[in-house]
Amino acid sequence: MQQEYDINKVNPLLARERKGVSFDVSKMTNLLDGGIEKTKAKQRASEIVYADEVLRDRTVQYMRREENMAHEWKRVARAIQISRKHDLTPEEEHQLMYYVGSNSGFSSTHSSMFAPTLANQTNDEQRKKWLPLARDYKIMGTYAQTEIGHGSNVRGLETIATYDKESQEFIINSPTKTSIKWWPGGLGKLANHAVVYAQLVIAEKNYGVHGFIVQIRDLEKHKPLPGVTVGDIGPKLGFASVDNGYLKLDNVRIPRDQMLARYSSVDADGTYHKPIHAKIGYGTMMFVRTHIVYNASDYLARGVTIAIRYSAIRTQFPPKGQPQKTHLEIPVLDYQTQQYRLLPLLATAYAFHFVGDYMMGLYNKLQQGIKKNDLSLLPLAHAATAGLKAITTETTANGIEECRKCCGGHGYSHLSGLPELFASYVPNCTYEGENVLLLLQTAGFIIKKVQSNKFMPEVNHEQSAARLDVSDLDSITNSYARRAKLDALHTAQGLNKLTKDTNNDYNKAWENSTVNLVRMSRSFLMYVIVHQFSQAVKEIKEDDLKKVMDKLCRLYALYNMDKECGEFDGLNIHEVRSSLQQLLKELRSDAVGLVDAFNFPDFLLRSALGRFDGNAYDHMIDEAMKQGLNTKEGDEYMRNAFSEYVKPLQQLKSKL
Amino acid sequence: MQQEYDINKVNPLLARERKGVSFDVSKMTNLLDGGIEKTKAKQRASEIVYADEVLRDRTVQYMRREENMAHEWKRVARAIQISRKHDLTPEEEHQLMYYVGSNSGFSSTHSSMFAPTLANQTNDEQRKKWLPLARDYKIMGTYAQTEIGHGSNVRGLETIATYDKESQEFIINSPTKTSIKWWPGGLGKLANHAVVYAQLVIAEKNYGVHGFIVQIRDLEKHKPLPGVTVGDIGPKLGFASVDNGYLKLDNVRIPRDQMLARYSSVDADGTYHKPIHAKIGYGTMMFVRTHIVYNASDYLARGVTIAIRYSAIRTQFPPKGQPQKTHLEIPVLDYQTQQYRLLPLLATAYAFHFVGDYMMGLYNKLQQGIKKNDLSLLPLAHAATAGLKAITTETTANGIEECRKCCGGHGYSHLSGLPELFASYVPNCTYEGENVLLLLQTAGFIIKKVQSNKFMPEVNHEQSAARLDVSDLDSITNSYARRAKLDALHTAQGLNKLTKDTNNDYNKAWENSTVNLVRMSRSFLMYVIVHQFSQAVKEIKEDDLKKVMDKLCRLYALYNMDKECGEFDGLNIHEVRSSLQQLLKELRSDAVGLVDAFNFPDFLLRSALGRFDGNAYDHMIDEAMKQGLNTKEGDEYMRNAFSEYVKPLQQLKSKL
Repeated sequence: MQQEYDINKVNPLLARERKGVSFDVSKMTNLLDGGIEKTKAKQRASEIVYADEVLRDRTVQYMRREENMAHEWKRVARAIQISRKHDLTPEEEHQLMYYVGSNSGFSSTHSSMFAPTLANQTNDEQRKKWLPLARDYKIMGTYAQTEIGHGSNVRGLETIATYDKESQEFIINSPTKTSIKWWPGGLGKLANHAVVYAQLVIAEKNYGVHGFIVQIRDLEKHKPLPGVTVGDIGPKLGFASVDNGYLKLDNVRIPRDQMLARYSSVDADGTYHKPIHAKIGYGTMMFVRTHIVYNASDYLARGVTIAIRYSAIRTQFPPKGQPQKTHLEIPVLDYQTQQYRLLPLLATAYAFHFVGDYMMGLYNKLQQGIKKNDLSLLPLAHAATAGLKAITTETTANGIEECRKCCGGHGYSHLSGLPELFASYVPNCTYEGENVLLLLQTAGFIIKKVQSNKFMPEVNHEQSAARLDVSDLDSITNSYARRAKLDALHTAQGLNKLTKDTNNDYNKAWENSTVNLVRMSRSFLMYVIVHQFSQAVKEIKEDDLKKVMDKLCRLYALYNMDKECGEFDGLNIHEVRSSLQQLLKELRSDAVGLVDAFNFPDFLLRSALGRFDGNAYDHMIDEAMKQGLNTKEGDEYMRNAFSEYVKPLQQLKSKL
Repeated sequence: MQQEYDINKVNPLLARERKGVSFDVSKMTNLLDGGIEKTKAKQRASEIVYADEVLRDRTVQYMRREENMAHEWKRVARAIQISRKHDLTPEEEHQLMYYVGSNSGFSSTHSSMFAPTLANQTNDEQRKKWLPLARDYKIMGTYAQTEIGHGSNVRGLETIATYDKESQEFIINSPTKTSIKWWPGGLGKLANHAVVYAQLVIAEKNYGVHGFIVQIRDLEKHKPLPGVTVGDIGPKLGFASVDNGYLKLDNVRIPRDQMLARYSSVDADGTYHKPIHAKIGYGTMMFVRTHIVYNASDYLARGVTIAIRYSAIRTQFPPKGQPQKTHLEIPVLDYQTQQYRLLPLLATAYAFHFVGDYMMGLYNKLQQGIKKNDLSLLPLAHAATAGLKAITTETTANGIEECRKCCGGHGYSHLSGLPELFASYVPNCTYEGENVLLLLQTAGFIIKKVQSNKFMPEVNHEQSAARLDVSDLDSITNSYARRAKLDALHTAQGLNKLTKDTNNDYNKAWENSTVNLVRMSRSFLMYVIVHQFSQAVKEIKEDDLKKVMDKLCRLYALYNMDKECGEFDGLNIHEVRSSLQQLLKELRSDAVGLVDAFNFPDFLLRSALGRFDGNAYDHMIDEAMKQGLNTKEGDEYMRNAFSEYVKPLQQLKSKL
């Protein structure tokens, strides 16, 4: 059937949208990428992937898990070979992997956690030995922290590393059922090494959780070493091609120099050297959280691209009051309700882009400081990564799901690309810190600041609220600032009062205030996001870009203000709402341009609905007809099943 | 490893929870079931399923789609055989199918849509011929309404049924690409018949959409009949074992008596008889929507059962300020934040139970009326099914997902049962009416009532708001009623004003008010739910049940009030919040009892985390170790893949 339609043409509805865009889309792409050179580099990486049939092939929907996993190993390994053949720089190789878009132990753990841990948590000697092995894939590693019984409470891990002075070795053990390592990506089938986190015990004294480099499989036959029980934990939501695994260690011995020794170490005689800061050993976590914040925008932008392009070509219903004629039907993006669902998400994808930049900048500043033993940024960086990780991942996961629902029935089809996008993203809400706990960490930072009168001193909360000017970004940002400050002061007061009411038991009062504390963190983080977004808008030089971005930023801020309107004082809610509706109307015609600017190639989106050409139905029909169940074999298989199981029912005695 | 643990014991943490419950759990089960006899009947059906290895076997996680589908056909067919052998009544057979818990074309379409359509939309003669064939599975049917280009706009369907007076036949055609039927469950591979919805054309005049019984495959070889192109649309989010399909009809002829003729018909000479009411032909849709509202509670209750039981046995962190000892760690259900996430969802599952009862009662009353040509309940029933379908499905889908996230990392594992629960539920948000459109249908009803001064006349909105008494259900319900009325009046005023502002173009004004109209519908529906729930609580006779249900109902109402606090007037938000926190504390100890009362057998929940015995870790370890990738074959397969794809990387020239 597919030959009936020419799928190389752009759907006229989408072509029309593109004509109406008010700004230069390529310039917006450059702005997002950080300069035209970066855009070009991305383009080159994208072309390498597109040109290679294996790299491009992500059709794993019909495979069993093991086939799927092997298929991804094949693709990533090939990408690495190609990268080395082309002599790509590490940054170029990273770009290439982005377009390969593989979810496997390679990306989920080896490259994003194992290698960075070796880079950041080792002393010079260790780094020199181990890092090249990992970066050249001579060893494959995983990051074995979480246990079946302990995730969030890292300090409560049960795995034990006992120092044996005689042999100068650590003896690593999983002493209980709940101490079995559970979840590390790439552990189940891929890794031959692991960084294992365990309680360090020297001469019967516990020195807390430390990391150890442990070989778990031999490099030749890839079989578990003695004392190692390892396997795959089974199917999950998303990550079908990642072998999240379990690991039980029974008296596994490793040499003394395999404890990660950048910040703390053990001498041959068992003398322990503690780190300069208690939290510094968790550097990998902050690194990963920073990247999670940085990547949120990219994922949400994919969902929004698919949903907005599809909404521009999906026509349904003529305008109210017009006759029921197919040619009179209008794109669903013309509907106010659809705009109200999608355009704020589009604005959020832009907001998170700049928040990601801010977070990455803060992280890099912290790292520079640490090199000079300056840890002054650590508390802020810790609070910001924790809180922003929570807000951005929650919003992105929910946003992708909303994009999916905005595509109606077709959003459920894997041909839309959206179910997979959601499944591959949503674990971000949980790993590297469950979101609610992270918000409480941010709350700890805020309360401390309030207690020392150092929380947002620039905001004068004693003045009564200025009237909100919905057309002015500064005025809107100030409202958010004021809300954040008042909420913090009020929550801190409540905490104090509760402490007094409970016999000065601060800890108990804290535990009975966590719902309020989480709310307070959200208020603060929403301010941070609005502030960063509006600052970024101010810095834009091109008028056309600046104008549309100013609208996007106000849309983002007012939309969220409306949702929590009970929390802002001095607010005329009707004014906010009518301003919102006005912004929807104004941004409507730029919607397709704003998603085009994200510049995702079709092969990355993998969505019949979200393709650049807008010919959703052609591609759906084409792909559905080709799939396995409709081949001769597939059809025969099902007809045999029918004849074996269903047909005998025709002989049932009627009961009617 | 599994033999190390005795999995027949109940986890002491869960046993302790059960001792602390304030009410009689069995009596609560009977209340929910509608009497002890109903509980017993459910028990019998459950035992039949549990006793049969095939019926109980839902381990389809490792299968390919076609195997999965065939496996489900086998299970359902076997259940039907068993039902007929035991001579079960239709109601008992229905219960049995509930416990079989299969998602296949049988349940998704044949039994829930095809057969009911034959029951309700046919004339006596047709019913006599077709209904027994369907109920005895001699034919397998689907409900072919949605097309690739038309879902929500049913009146815009493009399939055409042209009456041919000569032969007294209808000629059915799919004239365009977008007219291809797309999505009907069971169509792809299972069905040999379909009710096809098409524009009825007689002598070149279009009489609108009607239903037609069309045979699509022969009963012997199960191959498509001439003119029929049919197949499966491919993998989707959830419903892996349902063969949602596509159907293209080219000049397929059916006899005149295969147009569904209960409400409208065509005489031999082409004379058309129209129905007594325009919407009556959509009876199947209202039937299905009613059932969706009725079933929401059951699905949410499953999610809540899993998350609450797991939260009662998952310990993490000692109380703040206590030393880091494993035995000091407390269940995460003790955390206020966890209670705040889960207990309102528990309350919602109870709320929706009574809303389901209300909806079913209203539907049945309407049906009784229709039999006597009394259609007076139709507008209310239509508005209520539409709106409540939207609210209950959205809340349930989001709620299941929240339950999943409340289980931390382990919620992502399919062993938790939660990813599948979500995937099998969430399509309810879209099928049988996209939720936003449904809320606009409810809005239409409300605005009409307001315009004729008949909207909630019992509420005197001119009086100033009474002070909210957070301890009193009536006072809370009144706040919801007042909010609903004020919102409706205000929205209607806004609509009038906008109409005047746009040259009296009411339709345009409506389209520019849809965001507000949707909000207004939600206000009204939230009132309906709170009202129904509080009425149900009042009718409870047993003191212990009534006491806990009163708390649950207040929790539900105050939680939602807090979330939308900007919308209620006369509200002291701090009072609402502290009352909420008090309710969380009081309901904490009844949480496990309240989920036990739902009385789900373990084999239905299919969750290692949510089992009645509370031994989550044992079951997870046990099941993970058994799974395919950890068998000898699975392991060899992956080691070969490693050696083929990953090992060659060890020879890479280093670039470092």
